[in-house]
Amino acid sequence: MAKTNSGDVIYPAQFGDSIKKIGRIIRDHQRFLVCGHVRPDGDCVGSQMALYHLLTQMGKDVQLYNSGPIPPYFKFVKHIEKLRAFCDPAFEPEVCIYVDCGALDRANGNVKRCGVVINIDHHKSNEHFGDVNYVDWTATAVGEQLYHIISEMGEPISKDIAGCIYLSILADSGSFTFSNTSSMTFKVASRMVEAGADPAEIAQGLYEERSPQSVSLKAQVLSNMHFLCGGRIVWGEITQTMYRAAGGEEHEPDGLASEMRGMTGVEVSILIHEIPEGGLRAGFRSKGLFDVSRIAVELGGGGHVNASGCYVKGDYEAIKKNLLEISVRHMGE
Amino acid sequence: MAKTNSGDVIYPAQFGDSIKKIGRIIRDHQRFLVCGHVRPDGDCVGSQMALYHLLTQMGKDVQLYNSGPIPPYFKFVKHIEKLRAFCDPAFEPEVCIYVDCGALDRANGNVKRCGVVINIDHHKSNEHFGDVNYVDWTATAVGEQLYHIISEMGEPISKDIAGCIYLSILADSGSFTFSNTSSMTFKVASRMVEAGADPAEIAQGLYEERSPQSVSLKAQVLSNMHFLCGGRIVWGEITQTMYRAAGGEEHEPDGLASEMRGMTGVEVSILIHEIPEGGLRAGFRSKGLFDVSRIAVELGGGGHVNASGCYVKGDYEAIKKNLLEISVRHMGE
Repeated sequence: MAKTNSGDVIYPAQFGDSIKKIGRIIRDHQRFLVCGHVRPDGDCVGSQMALYHLLTQMGKDVQLYNSGPIPPYFKFVKHIEKLRAFCDPAFEPEVCIYVDCGALDRANGNVKRCGVVINIDHHKSNEHFGDVNYVDWTATAVGEQLYHIISEMGEPISKDIAGCIYLSILADSGSFTFSNTSSMTFKVASRMVEAGADPAEIAQGLYEERSPQSVSLKAQVLSNMHFLCGGRIVWGEITQTMYRAAGGEEHEPDGLASEMRGMTGVEVSILIHEIPEGGLRAGFRSKGLFDVSRIAVELGGGGHVNASGCYVKGDYEAIKKNLLEISVRHMGE
Repeated sequence: MAKTNSGDVIYPAQFGDSIKKIGRIIRDHQRFLVCGHVRPDGDCVGSQMALYHLLTQMGKDVQLYNSGPIPPYFKFVKHIEKLRAFCDPAFEPEVCIYVDCGALDRANGNVKRCGVVINIDHHKSNEHFGDVNYVDWTATAVGEQLYHIISEMGEPISKDIAGCIYLSILADSGSFTFSNTSSMTFKVASRMVEAGADPAEIAQGLYEERSPQSVSLKAQVLSNMHFLCGGRIVWGEITQTMYRAAGGEEHEPDGLASEMRGMTGVEVSILIHEIPEGGLRAGFRSKGLFDVSRIAVELGGGGHVNASGCYVKGDYEAIKKNLLEISVRHMGE
């Protein structure tokens, strides 16, 4: 274990070289492109914005790229408008930093690999595609890894940086309830609050700006849950008809699959979204040791033991039937 | 500020005397009664059980008292069966420790004041009814205060103690989202995880063992929300008819008023429960500076700025109408 400059928050020693190397590369260059992944979550947005604040604080030129739209509930994040869905062709980055991307194609879109490529991630499946890779799958969130980099560099952690790192940790730990929540998670969170992050304000931004339409969709799903295998599997669906009645897919209720899992006797929850192009997206959640990634993989998707997903094009009803049959079979095995 | 024996977790100096005094009283006596409040929450249960583990570890005789039933979702808490709704008449405590009780009548029931009375609480309204009072309304939870006492005493924090303290902090900080979440909250949480508390396991116990009936009631409320003052107030109700259809009041959905608050534009949420004795219980939640305790107080209740409640006997529909009128008036002021 190696000590960071901040005194008592200690990161795993095997990452010391990468952390120091990334710090040096940041110091030695001027123009940075920071890329996140498609369908950005709180860790992705928080990490990109934390790097934005760090790099501008150091007088660097920064652009942020994210293919596709940023969910509207991130509007509470300061300077979120800097996160853009196009790359300025006149901007020639010396360094590209990818955050929270297990593979280059997760960043997607019209970003080309250029300059020195830094890969900061906590997915077990990360493909180590960077010139420098700092991949720690025991880290709660990329924000936690950024904390180690920034404090090792000795750069001051401003209120803005602290808030973004806190956001990333809050989001990717499921508000400190997922199994990636460790003593380190809380140590870094404590530091971020000392540096000015406001836990209640950030939680309110992230969780308390749902649209009434999203809440209504959630109520419809919870009112129409289906149980299989004697209640061990629960599933629900949001069809295109439901989305249209609510006024568009941007009202997708977040965290609903996890909430459905939270019933006594339920081991696996499945939330199925009918997609406009025909077919479905599904999220699988499980408790304990049941590995839902096996179900997702069989449908061409992937993920973690307790949280996985898939995306299948084709006939909605036929794919749904197949998905449920596969789920029941895995439960029986 | 004074250092605890644990090194770097520092409690406010003005509580040093009380903390040390409580430690000495615990050391010097043998028989303890630990009392919590009616309708116990995670802080109450966690604090009582943390004291149970501490005192038995020290070889003391302990009984735990809580008037009325313990919600069934606490069944994951080890030795929860020690929390009983009667006092053994043969047991003569030398010390009574009240936790999380702002006033003696919050403990209620057939417990009589006896022996040395210790009052450990974090409610601003606490009546300082003890022989020793450790009342710190900046503390996240009584569990956090117990951590200071135990570490000041130099007693080892077992995995069981750590889990109970963690539970109390998790519950009373709303999973680290309420405005009582501070740098100290995270410091103590980090210590508890180091001492063996498992954040994911405890969160799963507290949040993921809801009954399907409770989820169904929640869906019904979310499907039938009413808006006032142009959407700034949202209210919903659970009537006795709904409870009966679901199979009993023990299926009351937890945290629903807070969830209703979480919509864009909503400033105040109100969840009304019709009570079997005629009348209602209501929970009020607000965002930001709007003080819902003013509404609750006008109805004979009380609470905090962002979370308050009341209990009014009488004609359900008449009281409900009055409650909504009062709420609209306060919103207009």
